[in-house]
Amino acid sequence: MARLVMKFGGTSVAGMDRIRNAARHVKREVDAGAQVAVVVSAMAGKTDELVALCRDASPHFDRREYDSVVASGEQVTAGLLAIALQSIGVAARSWQGWQIPILTTQTPGAARISGIDGERIVANLVARNEVAVIAGFQGLSKGTGRVTTLGRGGSDTSAVAVAAAIKADRCDIYTDVDGIYTTDPRVVPKARRLDRVAYEEMLEMASLGAKVMQVRSVELAMLKKVKTVVRSSFENPDSPRSGTLICDEEDIVEQQVVTGIAFSRDEAQITLRRVADRPGVAAAIFSPLAEAGINVDMIVQVASDDTVTTDITFTVGSGDFDRAKAILEKTKAQIGYAALQGAGGVAKVSAIGIGMRSHSGVAAIAFQALSEKGINIRAITTSEIKISVLIDTAYTELAVRTLHAIYGLDEA
Amino acid sequence: MARLVMKFGGTSVAGMDRIRNAARHVKREVDAGAQVAVVVSAMAGKTDELVALCRDASPHFDRREYDSVVASGEQVTAGLLAIALQSIGVAARSWQGWQIPILTTQTPGAARISGIDGERIVANLVARNEVAVIAGFQGLSKGTGRVTTLGRGGSDTSAVAVAAAIKADRCDIYTDVDGIYTTDPRVVPKARRLDRVAYEEMLEMASLGAKVMQVRSVELAMLKKVKTVVRSSFENPDSPRSGTLICDEEDIVEQQVVTGIAFSRDEAQITLRRVADRPGVAAAIFSPLAEAGINVDMIVQVASDDTVTTDITFTVGSGDFDRAKAILEKTKAQIGYAALQGAGGVAKVSAIGIGMRSHSGVAAIAFQALSEKGINIRAITTSEIKISVLIDTAYTELAVRTLHAIYGLDEA
Repeated sequence: MARLVMKFGGTSVAGMDRIRNAARHVKREVDAGAQVAVVVSAMAGKTDELVALCRDASPHFDRREYDSVVASGEQVTAGLLAIALQSIGVAARSWQGWQIPILTTQTPGAARISGIDGERIVANLVARNEVAVIAGFQGLSKGTGRVTTLGRGGSDTSAVAVAAAIKADRCDIYTDVDGIYTTDPRVVPKARRLDRVAYEEMLEMASLGAKVMQVRSVELAMLKKVKTVVRSSFENPDSPRSGTLICDEEDIVEQQVVTGIAFSRDEAQITLRRVADRPGVAAAIFSPLAEAGINVDMIVQVASDDTVTTDITFTVGSGDFDRAKAILEKTKAQIGYAALQGAGGVAKVSAIGIGMRSHSGVAAIAFQALSEKGINIRAITTSEIKISVLIDTAYTELAVRTLHAIYGLDEA
Repeated sequence: MARLVMKFGGTSVAGMDRIRNAARHVKREVDAGAQVAVVVSAMAGKTDELVALCRDASPHFDRREYDSVVASGEQVTAGLLAIALQSIGVAARSWQGWQIPILTTQTPGAARISGIDGERIVANLVARNEVAVIAGFQGLSKGTGRVTTLGRGGSDTSAVAVAAAIKADRCDIYTDVDGIYTTDPRVVPKARRLDRVAYEEMLEMASLGAKVMQVRSVELAMLKKVKTVVRSSFENPDSPRSGTLICDEEDIVEQQVVTGIAFSRDEAQITLRRVADRPGVAAAIFSPLAEAGINVDMIVQVASDDTVTTDITFTVGSGDFDRAKAILEKTKAQIGYAALQGAGGVAKVSAIGIGMRSHSGVAAIAFQALSEKGINIRAITTSEIKISVLIDTAYTELAVRTLHAIYGLDEA
């Protein structure tokens, strides 16, 4: 008998009609003989509303209180979905995080799951085939006895962690898209839905802006070998499409060299010229930025022509651009560099694929294709399964379409 | 050092401005040196909204799920008030029912408090003078491990029970009126706020429709000897009026014969003529009504002129009138009566006062006064501290004003 976790995100439970629709998806699986645990998010908009209340109470709100307030959103959805399931003849009960319990670290607002006792859930599944409807995004800090939340998007992580805890055969992430695409279909109409994608690829895609699943949840799925499917709750619950399976690379039979093209537009580039090439210089540059909470993404270092100094290029979110420049100018003496050059309005475009490991010349194809379109490459980084180029934002769509075609991803 | 429970009802926490106002009331007491536990209701309207969601999920919703959904309302208020308190320099943390825990019976939607461990609350009050902001209306069923609610208005009961558990010197019920009045000021503009009222009197007033405090909470206050004050949250938090103290009758120095005039308009009268005067006849009449969930209020039985039968008159809520008549007609053979007479549009008017115990002739004064105004009395019941008369609804205001004046309650 299959054991399944089904996770419904905010848009999939946005109102009672959507919740009833989710219930039909669950019923389909139960009717097919599966043991099902469901993980739910708050109804779309609800979390924002509760956060706004906390902010209104005080701009410097106590994050432990925030956790207790905001966790109520998932609690309400869980109860309502349990009722909706019962009303169509499916045995169900809701579980708040502390009831299972889903134990977490005690960092309020950004707790990490430290352990889930799946025994009671499994016992109910086995003995009564009672669907467990679990409030996602929340847990209990054993040390403090208080409710914690996992941070935005944490329900995906809840779902994968529950799947691991109850040894589920699969974790289905129901959302408002029907799977992972080779790239954003709004940019490339010929983008195709992938049947399968490897954990590592999904991780690169998620962190590059695909935004379908939270990065942490993909990491956890990879670590715990949880087969995860991204699929749409908006299709007919009685005959849904199958979505995209995120799995081990061994489970992918026909591997493409490149699986997808990801991109993010809101970047800014900073280059420090003639930085002294000595140990500790990277720390001198990046530690003050990290302390200021500025996320540094792509980092490229090349030797200058004088061979005793080096040029360092990196990107930050465009919202952090001015702050990052100010910090670097203030610490110029400590770092020791000749000039700071910055440019807003840059985009990062990446080609991702497990298959690159065993194919050479993959990067060269991209550089050639972009150059033929007259797209100037500002910086390049590559990893085992990814090539990223930094270009002017204006060329983003053209670059994505070009790479999508050249790597054979366009729909036939 | 005084220890205090402060309870804020739905209208007193209806939005962030009202919650901030409640925080100022709490700060006043803390600044004056009190140890304070606060009990809060859901923001006005919130509970109705959550109940509507459950109904929408299924008209026959599982009340255990309802409890989990609806309890989120108080949870949100508790967190927000804790934040608001912290923001004005008052140490505070929120507590959900299960965290204390407030243990209850397992009846969903209508659980009764079975025990509160006040130790952790008291420890925090004593060690850190940290205000405990407790979600009212909710608890934990130890047997099932599930969240329970106490039924509408249950936050008053939570407050009194917490006051008893932490041995508070006083329980202040903050609401949208500034105390208990001799009668409804909308009917009698000369109504006066009472400084003190005995538990027994308040109990009669509450059940007769004064609606300021839930009946169960008054019973509990009487049982546990919790000094309870009804007062307004809408006054200036820095110099509030003192409200009405509900206390032991020994603590009331100057006793009036009659303390207040209560009334309820939405009643219907049913009279069964020539009922066989035999043991078990009352059970035959009232058991089927109780089984149908119909609340029977005033019951009067008088011997008929034939001395072997009796006439029985009682009242039900006007909403139950037709159902009650139908049930009695169906069980006519079992009961054995000659005729059923009914009348909608009747009102019950009651004079209440501990002082009646030691004064004779109190009832006669009422009958005389009503008769002089031409008000026909349909039925009378009296208890040690109460006289109730049933009259036509149209005369309600006149009767209330007449009794209010005759018993010396009009403001000087």
